[in-house]
Amino acid sequence: MQNKSAGWNVDPLPSWNDGTTKQSIVSFVKKITDKSHAGYVPREERIATFDNDGTLWSEQPFYFQFGPFVMDRIKALAPKHPEWKTTQPFKAVIEDDRQALAASGKKGLEEIVMATHAGMTTAEFEQIVKDWIATAKHPRFKRLYTDMVFQPMLELLAYLRANGFKTFIVSGGSIGFMRPWVEGVYGIPPEQVVGSSIKIKFEMCNGKPVLVRLPELDFFNDKAGKPVGIHKFIGRRPIAAFGNSDGDLQMLQWTAAGDGPSLMVYIHHTDGEREWAYDRKSHIGRLDKGLDEANAKGWTVVDMKKDWKIIYPFELKK
Amino acid sequence: MQNKSAGWNVDPLPSWNDGTTKQSIVSFVKKITDKSHAGYVPREERIATFDNDGTLWSEQPFYFQFGPFVMDRIKALAPKHPEWKTTQPFKAVIEDDRQALAASGKKGLEEIVMATHAGMTTAEFEQIVKDWIATAKHPRFKRLYTDMVFQPMLELLAYLRANGFKTFIVSGGSIGFMRPWVEGVYGIPPEQVVGSSIKIKFEMCNGKPVLVRLPELDFFNDKAGKPVGIHKFIGRRPIAAFGNSDGDLQMLQWTAAGDGPSLMVYIHHTDGEREWAYDRKSHIGRLDKGLDEANAKGWTVVDMKKDWKIIYPFELKK
Repeated sequence: MQNKSAGWNVDPLPSWNDGTTKQSIVSFVKKITDKSHAGYVPREERIATFDNDGTLWSEQPFYFQFGPFVMDRIKALAPKHPEWKTTQPFKAVIEDDRQALAASGKKGLEEIVMATHAGMTTAEFEQIVKDWIATAKHPRFKRLYTDMVFQPMLELLAYLRANGFKTFIVSGGSIGFMRPWVEGVYGIPPEQVVGSSIKIKFEMCNGKPVLVRLPELDFFNDKAGKPVGIHKFIGRRPIAAFGNSDGDLQMLQWTAAGDGPSLMVYIHHTDGEREWAYDRKSHIGRLDKGLDEANAKGWTVVDMKKDWKIIYPFELKK
Repeated sequence: MQNKSAGWNVDPLPSWNDGTTKQSIVSFVKKITDKSHAGYVPREERIATFDNDGTLWSEQPFYFQFGPFVMDRIKALAPKHPEWKTTQPFKAVIEDDRQALAASGKKGLEEIVMATHAGMTTAEFEQIVKDWIATAKHPRFKRLYTDMVFQPMLELLAYLRANGFKTFIVSGGSIGFMRPWVEGVYGIPPEQVVGSSIKIKFEMCNGKPVLVRLPELDFFNDKAGKPVGIHKFIGRRPIAAFGNSDGDLQMLQWTAAGDGPSLMVYIHHTDGEREWAYDRKSHIGRLDKGLDEANAKGWTVVDMKKDWKIIYPFELKK
C-alpha cells in the first residue's frame, strides 16, 4: 500500500496507525528534507535525540538497569559479601523484601548501584552487562529485556536515519549499561549514546592499561542534565527529541528553542493491556508537567493505545 | 602518478614523502580494510583519534587557545574590569608583561582562562570564538590560526574517512573552543570532538532555555584523562591514534592495548625552519617519555622535516 502523504512507495512506519500523530512526524521529516522548503535543514544538522527508558523500551515495574539488573547482580555477588546478609539495603535485596528496600530510599539505591557498577574494569563491566542482557527475562512477559523495545520506535529510528538523521540516545541510564547492546538492538553506535556515568580512572595493571570504574557519580543525565549532556557530548542542538517523562522536559524545551523547525514528541503510556498505563502520578517515568507543556505548546503526544498497532516486535511473530 | 603500494590510482597522501613513515600508515589502512586479511576491521570499529594542538595544527609559541585567544579576550574585556589594571595576573596580560605572567604560574593561567571562558551562555561563547578565529593572526606567520593546520594531516583525515574511519579529535583544548570551527577546517563534526570542559548549567532566562558556562573545571582531557575521555565520549577503543606529546602517551598506550591491529603515530616537530623544532625539553608539547616508548615499541614517528613535503596549506598557493 502506498503512503502518498509521505511520498514513499512503502510506508516507513507500518506499525503506526494513520492519524495526526503519525502525520506530524512524517510532515516534519518531509519539510526539513525538502530543499525547496524554507524549513530545509542540512544533513549534518539533523540530530535526533531519544530518551531510552519508557521511550525506546519499557520501564515498568522499575527501570531495567536500576531494578532487575542491580538486584540480580547483588544476588550474584552476595556469596563474596557475607556481611550483606545483615546489612541494609543489601539484606533487603537478597531476601526480596521490597518494603525494606523501599524504606532504604534513594540513599539505599545509590549504595546498591555503586556496589554493582564500580570496582571492576570497563571491559569486565561490559561483559557483565552482555551476559545479563542475553539471559535475564522480564517477570511479566517472560521475555528478554531487549525484546521489550517498541517496534514503532525501531521503525521511527530507521526512518529518521534513512532521511539523513544522526540518532542519539540521551538517557538517565548509564552509558556503561547501554553501550554493550544498543548498537545491535537500535542501530545506535556506542559513540551516539549520551547518559549518566560514574568516574573512571586510567591505570597500568601488569604493564597493561585498564580503565577502572570508581564508586563516584560523574554526571547525572536527567532533567536539566539532559541539555547539558547534549551540549557536552553532541555539541549541537537537536532538531527532534523524543521522551516520555518530566525527566525529558528540559531536553524538549532545549530542542524547541532552536532557530529552525523542530519536532518535540512525548510517548504517553496509555495502554494498560499491551504495555502499562501511567502518567501524572507514577513513581517512575512520571509525565505531569511535561504533558501540560506539550498540550500548551502543541507538541506531539503519542497515545500508545491509539497510535501504535503493535507495541513489541515479538507481536509480529504471533 | 600511481602509488601502486596503496592500490590507489591517485596518491591519497600527496604531501607525504615516500618512505617508511608513509608506508606504515598506508599498509595499516590496506590491512584493516582488506576482507581477506586476518587483520580486517569492520567499518563501525574504525575509530581514529587525533590530538589537536601540535598534531593537527601548530601550538607555538603557546597553545592558541590558552595563549593568544585568552590574551585577546582579557584585553577586550579589560574596559569592563578596571580592577584588572592593578590585579595580577590580569595586569600582566594587559601590559604584555610576559615575565609577570609566567610568574603567576598555573594558578594565574587558570584565573585568566575562567575569566574569559565562563560567565556567558554557550551560544555567546560560540560567537566569541567564531569572531576571534575569523580575524586573529599568528605573530610569526601573519596568518589566521586556521591557516596553520598541517596539510599532510588534512590529507590523512580525508584518506582515513574515505576508508570508512570515523575521525575524532581528542584534545586537551576545550570542546567549546574547538567545535565552532573544526567542522569547516578538518571535516570533523562537533559530536566527534572530545576535549576538556568547564561545567555548564541549564537555566530559564525570560522563558527561554539557555546553557550558562560556569567558572569550574568539569573534565581535563589530557594525559591519563585522554583514555577516560575516549571511553566517556566514544565508548570504543580507537584502532588508530595520533599525537605529538607526552600528553598523548596514555591515548596511544590505550590504543595499542586493543586485541586487533592498531596504529600509533607520533608527530615529531623537527622542522625549525618551516615550523618549529622541539621535543624533550619544550615547555609545551613536550615529547620525551612518549618518544622513548615509541622507539621501544616500534610506533610510527613522523619526522616533519623529512616526511612532509609541505607543512601548511598556504604553501601550496605560493
